[in-house]
Amino acid sequence: MRVLPGLLLSLSLVLPAMHGHADEGMWQPAQLPDLEVQLKARGLDLEPEDLARLTEYPLGAIVGFGFCTASFVSPDGLVVTNHHCAYGAIQYNSTPERNLLADGFLAATHKDELPAEPTMRIFVTESIEDVTARITEGLDDSVTGTARHQAIDRASKAVVAECEATPGYRCDVYVFHQGLSFQLVRQLEVRDVRLVYAPASAIGKFGGDIDNWMWPRHTGDFSFLRAYVGPDGKPAAYSEDNVPYKPRHHLKVQPEGVSAGDFVMVTGYPGRTNRYRLSEEVRDAIEWQYPTTIELYQRYVDIVEGHPDAEARLKYAGNIASWNNTLKNFGGQIEGLRRADAVAVKARGEEELERWLDRNRDGERLKAGVARLREELAKARGTRERDLLFRQFSGLAMLRAGYSIERLAMERGKPDAEREYGFQQRDEARLEGFLRTIDRRFDPAVEVKLGTELLVRYARLPADQRIAELDAWLDGASTAEAISARLTALYAGSSLTDPARRLEWFAADLDAIKASDDALLRFVDALMPAWLRAEEQDKQASGNAFLYRPQYMQAMIDYNRSRNRPIYPDANNSLRVSYGTVTGYSPRDGMQYLPFTTLEGLAAKHTGEDPFDATQRQLDEIAARRHGSYADPALGSVPVNFLADLDITGGNSGSPTLNGKGELIGLAFDGNIESVSASWLFEPAITRSIHVDVRYMLWVMDVVDGAHHLLREMGLSAARR
Amino acid sequence: MRVLPGLLLSLSLVLPAMHGHADEGMWQPAQLPDLEVQLKARGLDLEPEDLARLTEYPLGAIVGFGFCTASFVSPDGLVVTNHHCAYGAIQYNSTPERNLLADGFLAATHKDELPAEPTMRIFVTESIEDVTARITEGLDDSVTGTARHQAIDRASKAVVAECEATPGYRCDVYVFHQGLSFQLVRQLEVRDVRLVYAPASAIGKFGGDIDNWMWPRHTGDFSFLRAYVGPDGKPAAYSEDNVPYKPRHHLKVQPEGVSAGDFVMVTGYPGRTNRYRLSEEVRDAIEWQYPTTIELYQRYVDIVEGHPDAEARLKYAGNIASWNNTLKNFGGQIEGLRRADAVAVKARGEEELERWLDRNRDGERLKAGVARLREELAKARGTRERDLLFRQFSGLAMLRAGYSIERLAMERGKPDAEREYGFQQRDEARLEGFLRTIDRRFDPAVEVKLGTELLVRYARLPADQRIAELDAWLDGASTAEAISARLTALYAGSSLTDPARRLEWFAADLDAIKASDDALLRFVDALMPAWLRAEEQDKQASGNAFLYRPQYMQAMIDYNRSRNRPIYPDANNSLRVSYGTVTGYSPRDGMQYLPFTTLEGLAAKHTGEDPFDATQRQLDEIAARRHGSYADPALGSVPVNFLADLDITGGNSGSPTLNGKGELIGLAFDGNIESVSASWLFEPAITRSIHVDVRYMLWVMDVVDGAHHLLREMGLSAARR
Repeated sequence: MRVLPGLLLSLSLVLPAMHGHADEGMWQPAQLPDLEVQLKARGLDLEPEDLARLTEYPLGAIVGFGFCTASFVSPDGLVVTNHHCAYGAIQYNSTPERNLLADGFLAATHKDELPAEPTMRIFVTESIEDVTARITEGLDDSVTGTARHQAIDRASKAVVAECEATPGYRCDVYVFHQGLSFQLVRQLEVRDVRLVYAPASAIGKFGGDIDNWMWPRHTGDFSFLRAYVGPDGKPAAYSEDNVPYKPRHHLKVQPEGVSAGDFVMVTGYPGRTNRYRLSEEVRDAIEWQYPTTIELYQRYVDIVEGHPDAEARLKYAGNIASWNNTLKNFGGQIEGLRRADAVAVKARGEEELERWLDRNRDGERLKAGVARLREELAKARGTRERDLLFRQFSGLAMLRAGYSIERLAMERGKPDAEREYGFQQRDEARLEGFLRTIDRRFDPAVEVKLGTELLVRYARLPADQRIAELDAWLDGASTAEAISARLTALYAGSSLTDPARRLEWFAADLDAIKASDDALLRFVDALMPAWLRAEEQDKQASGNAFLYRPQYMQAMIDYNRSRNRPIYPDANNSLRVSYGTVTGYSPRDGMQYLPFTTLEGLAAKHTGEDPFDATQRQLDEIAARRHGSYADPALGSVPVNFLADLDITGGNSGSPTLNGKGELIGLAFDGNIESVSASWLFEPAITRSIHVDVRYMLWVMDVVDGAHHLLREMGLSAARR
Repeated sequence: MRVLPGLLLSLSLVLPAMHGHADEGMWQPAQLPDLEVQLKARGLDLEPEDLARLTEYPLGAIVGFGFCTASFVSPDGLVVTNHHCAYGAIQYNSTPERNLLADGFLAATHKDELPAEPTMRIFVTESIEDVTARITEGLDDSVTGTARHQAIDRASKAVVAECEATPGYRCDVYVFHQGLSFQLVRQLEVRDVRLVYAPASAIGKFGGDIDNWMWPRHTGDFSFLRAYVGPDGKPAAYSEDNVPYKPRHHLKVQPEGVSAGDFVMVTGYPGRTNRYRLSEEVRDAIEWQYPTTIELYQRYVDIVEGHPDAEARLKYAGNIASWNNTLKNFGGQIEGLRRADAVAVKARGEEELERWLDRNRDGERLKAGVARLREELAKARGTRERDLLFRQFSGLAMLRAGYSIERLAMERGKPDAEREYGFQQRDEARLEGFLRTIDRRFDPAVEVKLGTELLVRYARLPADQRIAELDAWLDGASTAEAISARLTALYAGSSLTDPARRLEWFAADLDAIKASDDALLRFVDALMPAWLRAEEQDKQASGNAFLYRPQYMQAMIDYNRSRNRPIYPDANNSLRVSYGTVTGYSPRDGMQYLPFTTLEGLAAKHTGEDPFDATQRQLDEIAARRHGSYADPALGSVPVNFLADLDITGGNSGSPTLNGKGELIGLAFDGNIESVSASWLFEPAITRSIHVDVRYMLWVMDVVDGAHHLLREMGLSAARR
């Protein structure tokens, strides 16, 4: 069962997608024939049935790629995705002497292509099978909480193990409609991925974090990789003998691009949305979860930035970027959800559904179920301060290290299928890697400050939110001074701050760990019952959600079907199709964002300082107006990025953007800042996806980087200039 | 001669307005018949000849108002202008108990109208007469420098004195085309001005300094006053017996407003532009003057904000606002002039003109003149650091006080016509007012810090930029400590910090001042020769500019006439007409500013905190969509502000914006941030004026403030809701 870690911790509830709009929706391919009227009206030239077939054109060319999407664009396994998705492969091959991130990279021949890091994978979806009956067999309404959670978990693991018996495949059970349906997805797992071409970061990451979620945008967020397989055509680890993979299909690249008002669609693997939540869950998010997290993360940032040791600060640069990213995202969500009056919108939808249920045979039972879910939410709300602080505290590097060591030792004794999620055999390499590399992002003095901040807050919690094991360790300490002293002693008394010792402990058995007098291991062992209780609490909630939600999702689907409105499932990392129109929007009164940006706008943004440091070569070509054949006649220049009103989310990065004929005319790579709240509520007037225009990609390849052999490989006449 | 103070200090040179565009230009009314083709093409319905007649409709309804413009809108002397132009009148009538700025004001009857401050004037232009022959009589090319400056000054004063012999009139000689032409403007001087209606600042100043120069904009920048005259119809100081003035003409108010693409024009009194400068003057501005001033003012801001005494800091709030305003303006100018490549654009125009001069009979002489002007500029450049620092130092409150006292005493001995500009009888009240009120904006400790900053910089200047008198006083002091100690002693040893003593000194004669042992008066007396030399230097430059510039302006006019391009003179506070179209613009790639904002955009900007604190009444009416009859069908709401591409500058504030029939459809009140550099170079694509829409004015009057009797007075059916 492919479940994002956070999912276990949150209660989801099915609720109607009220303000339906043709361009809202991340549709399952099989649903597209039902949307024929809308798709044709928007400008789809293909038959909707063609879009429903996983192994035909164009879906057969779409692949999963880490937390991104990519697509084949040549018969020899050439793959295009976002620069930020290929970032790891570029970084992995960079050295101080040969900085591919800064300078870019272009392999002249197949021999020059560089192996990506060994964990990089390309997944080609080959089949999707409904396994709901097998997963939910024997699960009547009397099976609740942890029991239900574990039954589903066990059945899913069995289905996956059976499917993965054929080597070279990865199988996952995906949860649709909050548990109404379970589908087994079988994917070819390509394990030899090589870097073919990446523009310089000054192109691929132009605008950097400053322009993240922003429009107008000028980012050349694209790179090329190639899938390799063994000489027998089967997936294989990297080897010199491997050969390029021959995909069944590859996308036709359309160098003419699209214009404002044109139909466009995106096919890819969107990660997660919360479109079917209760109004009170939206309220909890904007009134408690987001503001509380913002306040806490801002404090983290202040603590690290105020720390006197520059070297230690540097180690937390990644954390700071991530905290700031969350601050921007959550701030944007609060603003967006308030602006949209999302709580009221959701509440009106709930009333609408309840009125419909009142006229429905099953109405009373379903309404009682909603009441049960509300009780679960209320229960979770009763300890949310503690749960947040404890989760954050458990996330400190040393705490995570100690917990991982002891928990793995606890699980190792069991058969693999019975081991806890995250601590199975397949997780061990990842855990070891984490323990090995902690020090790059960890400083004991900073961590003591962060831990002190959290425990001082914890110490103020009321009696009904206490954790006995933590209270015992605190022994009455409640001031920053006292807590800091205890944490300092804890870290000083532990060998886990030494990477070599950490790895020794990683290999140790449970008895040795329990017998240790290492201060941190003792602390972790004392806290373990609290962690196990938290886990049990999560499983209880998960099992109950699996019971209540599917019923309501069904009610909602029926209700909307009665109004001739098909319902798409929340994003769950499975393959989807979104469609819409190339169009700008008005971010506020008196302003309009136009759908395209141009080369000249890129040059105008150039300051010479990262992240606005275009290369001189590029600036010269722009100044000379060498547009090749890539200019848009209406714009009088080469389009760089464009906006569309189709519905995407994280995971869609790198997805091909297709025209009505299914030809590649761009890559999705971001959403606008107004779209961050679209995870809860899609607003047709202002939710926009941001795409890199195929004409900019080709212009960079042709005019700036001279990647003419790749243009030829994609079937384009090279040097269109 | 009406000359802005700064003019004496700067060398201006005539140069072609290269990239002429129909909408660039602040035209003299008499020029409009020459523009008939363009005006008709844009959409003017009136005959251009009608716009050339000062005493006919519509120009007869336009009046000067301080540094602003206003217009009559009823037969009973009702005048409309910007809220920020009427600000003084509103503030003058405000008390802590009755805060008209905060609450707004509406006189129910004529009796309730409130007298503005006694210095407030309304000027009705009655005639413009060319007096070039009289002013330049006997001035051949041999009269240069100070002699030329003084001859022109003397002749102007004589013409003005003769004209002002009729009581009730104000006369001024305006310099056109840098001295090519001198025109005597005769204006009726209405001295009894009363406040009739001002909306609350939350409307009239909505957006405040934050939105200054910004779009999208939602400012209700309008207020109403009334002109009163004596029972005999002649101008008179305030008296209960006065009666409303009956203007010859008043503007018809057109409640339908205008739409995007419509013709609009603005009639008013633009203050100053530098459209005909040499490229090297633009370069000096963006490479030296603006960045140097920015660096210095930023330092001032830091000094004041870092000062520990909160009460003292408060006294400089106005200075800080003014410095920040300059920082924003100069920063915007640098950015705009660089973006426009203004130096190169001007240089190309110069070459073009020179090539034309080469084929012209007078070419050699004129080119020699340019060379002379370049020499003058080079000379000024040689001491510009010192001149800037000395001018700033002389601007410190205590220095200005001391200088004013002694200089006035020096001038008092002469016949009034021979007294120095700024120190004539008519200036004495203003000088006394300044001395009386210094303490509101002055703190000795802060001023010592500012003075120290300036003198430390001065102390670093090379030998050829020294001021002997200042060096003698410094006596070798060059460090901040030493200079600060000297300034502290200077202020401690002076009675000028005491307002009562300052006024005693203001009345004292020169001998008494010279005999005083007051430290500051001794210092001022010692510095006086340096000030007189600076004045002489300015007059020299002014006289030479009066010699060279008109010749070149004539060359430029001839050159452009040969290309059928009429040339408008730089703005000089005289009555002008600008015309253009209601239209947005693209501030940068991928964005468009729309021409109108709406009530809903105003509500969306509301935060509850000044300056975004709309009144609850207004928010309720907006939420209820009570648009009355003022909504624009295309917008679906009441337009608040709009953009036009016509050419205005400071002084145009409050100018009526007219449609093609000459009916009032708005008020000009600001330019966009891109327009700050338009004082040097008008860029048709991005220079925009910002107007309050007549429909918003009427909506506020009707729906929010209930000013129905004023609507009726303007000939509108009241309560159009």
